[in-house]
Amino acid sequence: MAETPHQNADRAPARILMGPGPSNIHPRVYLALSRPVVGHMDPLYFQAMDETQRRLRTLFGTRNELTLALPTTGMGAMEASLVNLIEPGDDVLVGKHGVFSGRMTGIAERCGAKVRELDVEWGRAVDPAQLEAELRRHPVKLVALVHAETSTGVVQDRLPELAKLCHAHGALLLVDTVASLGGVPFHADEWEIDAVYTGSQKCLGVPPGIAPLTFGPRAEEKLKNRKTPVQSWFFDLTLVRKYWNEERVYHHTGPINMTWALLEGLRLIDEEGLEARWARHTHAAKALHAGLEAMGLELFVKHPGLRCPTVTTVNVPAGADDAKTRKVLLEQHGLEIGGGLGPLKGKTWRVGLMGEGAQGNHVLLFLSALGAILQAQGVKVKAGAGVEAAGAALNGR
Amino acid sequence: MAETPHQNADRAPARILMGPGPSNIHPRVYLALSRPVVGHMDPLYFQAMDETQRRLRTLFGTRNELTLALPTTGMGAMEASLVNLIEPGDDVLVGKHGVFSGRMTGIAERCGAKVRELDVEWGRAVDPAQLEAELRRHPVKLVALVHAETSTGVVQDRLPELAKLCHAHGALLLVDTVASLGGVPFHADEWEIDAVYTGSQKCLGVPPGIAPLTFGPRAEEKLKNRKTPVQSWFFDLTLVRKYWNEERVYHHTGPINMTWALLEGLRLIDEEGLEARWARHTHAAKALHAGLEAMGLELFVKHPGLRCPTVTTVNVPAGADDAKTRKVLLEQHGLEIGGGLGPLKGKTWRVGLMGEGAQGNHVLLFLSALGAILQAQGVKVKAGAGVEAAGAALNGR
Repeated sequence: MAETPHQNADRAPARILMGPGPSNIHPRVYLALSRPVVGHMDPLYFQAMDETQRRLRTLFGTRNELTLALPTTGMGAMEASLVNLIEPGDDVLVGKHGVFSGRMTGIAERCGAKVRELDVEWGRAVDPAQLEAELRRHPVKLVALVHAETSTGVVQDRLPELAKLCHAHGALLLVDTVASLGGVPFHADEWEIDAVYTGSQKCLGVPPGIAPLTFGPRAEEKLKNRKTPVQSWFFDLTLVRKYWNEERVYHHTGPINMTWALLEGLRLIDEEGLEARWARHTHAAKALHAGLEAMGLELFVKHPGLRCPTVTTVNVPAGADDAKTRKVLLEQHGLEIGGGLGPLKGKTWRVGLMGEGAQGNHVLLFLSALGAILQAQGVKVKAGAGVEAAGAALNGR
Repeated sequence: MAETPHQNADRAPARILMGPGPSNIHPRVYLALSRPVVGHMDPLYFQAMDETQRRLRTLFGTRNELTLALPTTGMGAMEASLVNLIEPGDDVLVGKHGVFSGRMTGIAERCGAKVRELDVEWGRAVDPAQLEAELRRHPVKLVALVHAETSTGVVQDRLPELAKLCHAHGALLLVDTVASLGGVPFHADEWEIDAVYTGSQKCLGVPPGIAPLTFGPRAEEKLKNRKTPVQSWFFDLTLVRKYWNEERVYHHTGPINMTWALLEGLRLIDEEGLEARWARHTHAAKALHAGLEAMGLELFVKHPGLRCPTVTTVNVPAGADDAKTRKVLLEQHGLEIGGGLGPLKGKTWRVGLMGEGAQGNHVLLFLSALGAILQAQGVKVKAGAGVEAAGAALNGR
């Protein structure tokens, strides 16, 4: 096989990762990743698990005892959450407003749930009135929602109200924060969210392959009162937690190096401060939005309050070649953005500003490169105006 | 929290890992682990997936198309294999001769299988005559066996015969090679094994958290003819394979850095050569066995042909303090071995010689340290004779 630089995975350049994850990684996290392996029952590893657990509680905004990280990806954590919370025959309601909420339905059905979907227009969030009407008509045991839908770029903005409604109607609330946690305000306890999971590779700034979750008191009750075993042994949290708590019962071999990396990522988050980190994500996103609109492009999410700072969806303008634009961005500029997912394939681009990548330089570079590429394709965009608007937003004007 | 060197995970020393995994890691694998993250749909990542797949086929000894690595641990790969191969109501036979085969039973039952166990004395392997008698009495759709039981240190030595018997009775054969693949001869195609999985952290010399598997033609038939969906979406190989083949359908976010590491581990294996690597494991194990016996200790597995080179089980001698011995080995010598599992807890030690760790220096150091610790406990062992015998075996005398 012929090998040329940048065409060989071994010489993979440091990409500018502005897709919907993975995001760029801080050097300290890379160093942690390659620290020596120790045994999965080594006291030093238990110490790292304890510190990880403590910092995850801060990140989730919770005091939940059942807080840990699974050796899987965000999709695995989605499955882990659902298999633990669902028993065959349970009624489940999924807020459907994107690809990832659709996936929740599929998994819940494989758990034997009777799933209803709350249809929400793509580009909108779940409306409390709509949820309440649905819960009145059809009571369920579990409601599952996605906080930040990476397929649409929408942030579910009224989670505390939605949680209250779920509880008033006897349902638990499970929330997917894969694309939001660490980049967007989230308070599991204050908002009374019963179960939450996330991934490592988006706003936490850690490579993919380890997935944190937390279960609160109502979710714990469900675990305790199950009449059937969790269909997955590997994801059975009642077993997994015994590896994480003082019992230290071997369940699986802890993903040692990924844990070193996650822990370092969590320390970086604590050093920056969650509030400052959320503000940084918002600041970068506002500049991106201003730049795209000044350039003459259209954001997919119309309502500014529903735009998730971590993933921006922008409509592919008429005359632009979707795949080619992304290819040139990647090959010529080393810059990755995402294409549209599901029904939005070919219609939107997904631009991530997550973790280390939520920075003004990424915004300016992306807008400059995109403007040039579109103009070269004969698409009429105001490239310079876009960069100027973004620069102004970054500098607080 | 007070921090002293070697008591803080950040300053974890380079342990000598002689437990039943994880094992020590080659420097090149650490370097690969911390190479820059790229996107999970990046052409460079696809290239690494392709090369990984090709090298995994060599490792498994197969031409199976369905060969890939899952973002999970060995236990997750066990579950992935079982959920794909079992439909509710299927009859399944598990060869029960250790802790890990017991886990197979638990998972198969959660899949809705009617599980029978073939009881084999711990310390022995499955006897073909015993299997045949059982299959005549109770035909099953799937037989599941562990190649190397880390809880007993036994290697299943007659897999080709067992596979033929399974097929003659219409059953598929699934084999767990978590503790053997890369350290002990294995030929999936030649031996006609239908499905095989492994972990990364034992004989492959890669950190824990990524798990290869391969499914052959009979297993593929089972997937194709299933009447029920696989109960796990995350482990549904019919979906996962579309991410690994030319369709490149997004299923989960590939564990980028763990893939870089696995690929580098596989290259090191190819550079050494599988035959040479197997011989190295055997050579080190024979020296360990000779040393332990010359020291006056007793190996748990009586029959030399059933002793797995990768994990040696040795009986804790009368008068020795199991936990204290392991603690002193770890804290004073930085050397980890494993305690007994299940009914062997407190009765055996498990000594791993896997991957990079399958080397004479580890054997000599372990025997020297163990001899000194046991003598300090007042246990009568011939420490010097043990080290001499091991040295002689290493030098081919």
